[in-house]
Amino acid sequence: MTGMVEVPHGLAGVVVADTEIGDVRGEEGFYHYRQYSAIDLAQKRSFEDVWYLMCHGELPDAHQLKEFTAATAKLRHLSPKLQSLLPQLAGVRPLDGLRTALSFAAAEQGMQPLLDIDEPQRSADVLFACAVTPTILTGMYRLSTGNEPVEPRDDLPFAANYLYMLTGSVPTPEYADAIEKYLISTVDHGFNNSTFTARTIASSKADVGACLVGAIGALSGPLHGGAPSRALAALEEIGSPDNIDKWVRDRVLAGERIMGFGHAVYRTDDPRSVMLRDVATSLGGDLVDFAKQTERRVVEILAELKPGRQLYTNVEFYAGVVMEQCGVPRDMFTPTFASSRMVGWGANVLEQARDSKIIRPRARYTGPQAPQPVEDLA
Amino acid sequence: MTGMVEVPHGLAGVVVADTEIGDVRGEEGFYHYRQYSAIDLAQKRSFEDVWYLMCHGELPDAHQLKEFTAATAKLRHLSPKLQSLLPQLAGVRPLDGLRTALSFAAAEQGMQPLLDIDEPQRSADVLFACAVTPTILTGMYRLSTGNEPVEPRDDLPFAANYLYMLTGSVPTPEYADAIEKYLISTVDHGFNNSTFTARTIASSKADVGACLVGAIGALSGPLHGGAPSRALAALEEIGSPDNIDKWVRDRVLAGERIMGFGHAVYRTDDPRSVMLRDVATSLGGDLVDFAKQTERRVVEILAELKPGRQLYTNVEFYAGVVMEQCGVPRDMFTPTFASSRMVGWGANVLEQARDSKIIRPRARYTGPQAPQPVEDLA
Repeated sequence: MTGMVEVPHGLAGVVVADTEIGDVRGEEGFYHYRQYSAIDLAQKRSFEDVWYLMCHGELPDAHQLKEFTAATAKLRHLSPKLQSLLPQLAGVRPLDGLRTALSFAAAEQGMQPLLDIDEPQRSADVLFACAVTPTILTGMYRLSTGNEPVEPRDDLPFAANYLYMLTGSVPTPEYADAIEKYLISTVDHGFNNSTFTARTIASSKADVGACLVGAIGALSGPLHGGAPSRALAALEEIGSPDNIDKWVRDRVLAGERIMGFGHAVYRTDDPRSVMLRDVATSLGGDLVDFAKQTERRVVEILAELKPGRQLYTNVEFYAGVVMEQCGVPRDMFTPTFASSRMVGWGANVLEQARDSKIIRPRARYTGPQAPQPVEDLA
Repeated sequence: MTGMVEVPHGLAGVVVADTEIGDVRGEEGFYHYRQYSAIDLAQKRSFEDVWYLMCHGELPDAHQLKEFTAATAKLRHLSPKLQSLLPQLAGVRPLDGLRTALSFAAAEQGMQPLLDIDEPQRSADVLFACAVTPTILTGMYRLSTGNEPVEPRDDLPFAANYLYMLTGSVPTPEYADAIEKYLISTVDHGFNNSTFTARTIASSKADVGACLVGAIGALSGPLHGGAPSRALAALEEIGSPDNIDKWVRDRVLAGERIMGFGHAVYRTDDPRSVMLRDVATSLGGDLVDFAKQTERRVVEILAELKPGRQLYTNVEFYAGVVMEQCGVPRDMFTPTFASSRMVGWGANVLEQARDSKIIRPRARYTGPQAPQPVEDLA
């Protein structure tokens, strides 16, 4: 067939776009947002700082940060129609509910195609979507557990307000700080499947809602990864330190994956895991000690049974531990991840909007030769 | 950077998958579903025949067709919750409303990730989504024009039922046949942006709802094409035969595209356009005569002003004319297209579900060198 370009399966390594948003250097165990180490940002700056950085390409000064923080806090409130939709969604899987509610919110806002609006309006649409997401997710969660949604508080930063809406209490500074670091560290991470989905839709110049709703759908796929509850479930299954070795060996010999270990890109420690281990350590507790003990043994046993594979903990492992310690219910682990990743998707949509070329690959037909005659039954 | 694969911008010509669903042979002006010419199918078979073919890979026998027709007709009815959502969506753009309502319906159905269900369940989820789509779209349309939705009729075929739910009257056989041919001819058409979106999400093994909702979003993008109302609006702007030449010359000399002419893939007549011209001719009427006259002059003038470009009518041009003649309101042109394309997306999702590799390309970072130091404001 004319002009077919052969590439690795799953587009592995295929360069789809130039980006100034960031990169993952898997061999080095390093990733960055814009020109800054993501881990550095998580340790030194606020979520709002990083959100601003992702949207605008630079860190805000004090005045810009104050304005941005106030403006985005105001956007957290849901419209009456959206509020009345949430009880209808309270029983469904959280990401499916978010997909639906955000699609509704975007349509209700009257979001216009990227092609028809200017950059400030595109940015405003992205900010709106990112700001309402935690309110939607925590509201659905509370309704599903028989509680009323908690109205967002404009005087709380993004991370603290997230925990506040989830639990109904203002979190301790330690918990707010731990969750803020987690949220910052998961804002963006290369051209994963959901980010690429957002950009593919954006390349048709659909509205911001269409792009983000598609990305949420992609994130809900089990192959996407990012399910910190699975790693925690594994810890629970192990149960006690004297069961670690047997549990791990059984899994590995049965050819099963150990949840929380190994990553498609990193060939060394996942830098998010390293930071979250420190965060977990500072929070303390039996779960943290057990997790660290388990990590050590899993790495040792994997090195013994799968020499050369270099399987280290990924972001899932300590993310689950940190969220559990901060009182985030397990059903909300992946939705919490979605709340921060929304900011990364948004930045990618804004960047893709400036590229006028639609993403339109092709397939190779491998079925029976066409055309075969069609019997006329009309 | 290690292992980067350079490809044409927008993945043009890049082979992302093997497919047995069909192909577009742009140079020949030919496209097919499975091993059959799509145009042949449109002229000789029913929509249900082709729907079955897309799902199962072969045309049904009489018994299979009867069962399939009855089963899919039963799926057209909306749940009470979904029915009560429609009035909330009546004011929004139709594809945004469909995106939201279908996301809701999939969640309410409890659709599970592709990874966790077998082929029959995946097929059932796809059939459900395809079956409710016309009911959702026509219901929202009628509500937006102050009318009550019309309950689907299980005794009518897909195409006739579509027009029935839209207008409230059982259509004449001529109209039902014309719309059926249009619907069949637009079920699938290669790896366009929305089909690729559906497959990208499916590669993460998310649920059928997530995949189709993403595809709807992509289709709503203005660069995706498939907006038959634009071509009709152009005809209206021209107004009368003696204005054709001036109108076309003005557009071309101003560097504007003539809507309804030219296609990314076809280098000759778009076979859909050729068939739909015949359908329009058999329907007859002043609009059809005017459209044919306009087509002739546009092709002649384009050949004169842009020699060698070979710009022929695409599917939009006569699709708009046919739908207008059959009484489809202009706001429902693209939604009508979405109703048939849903079947093509569904077939693509089912095929992608059998491929275990996630689609995950990469980007090239082109921003300032990282890492730069982060000032500590924490």
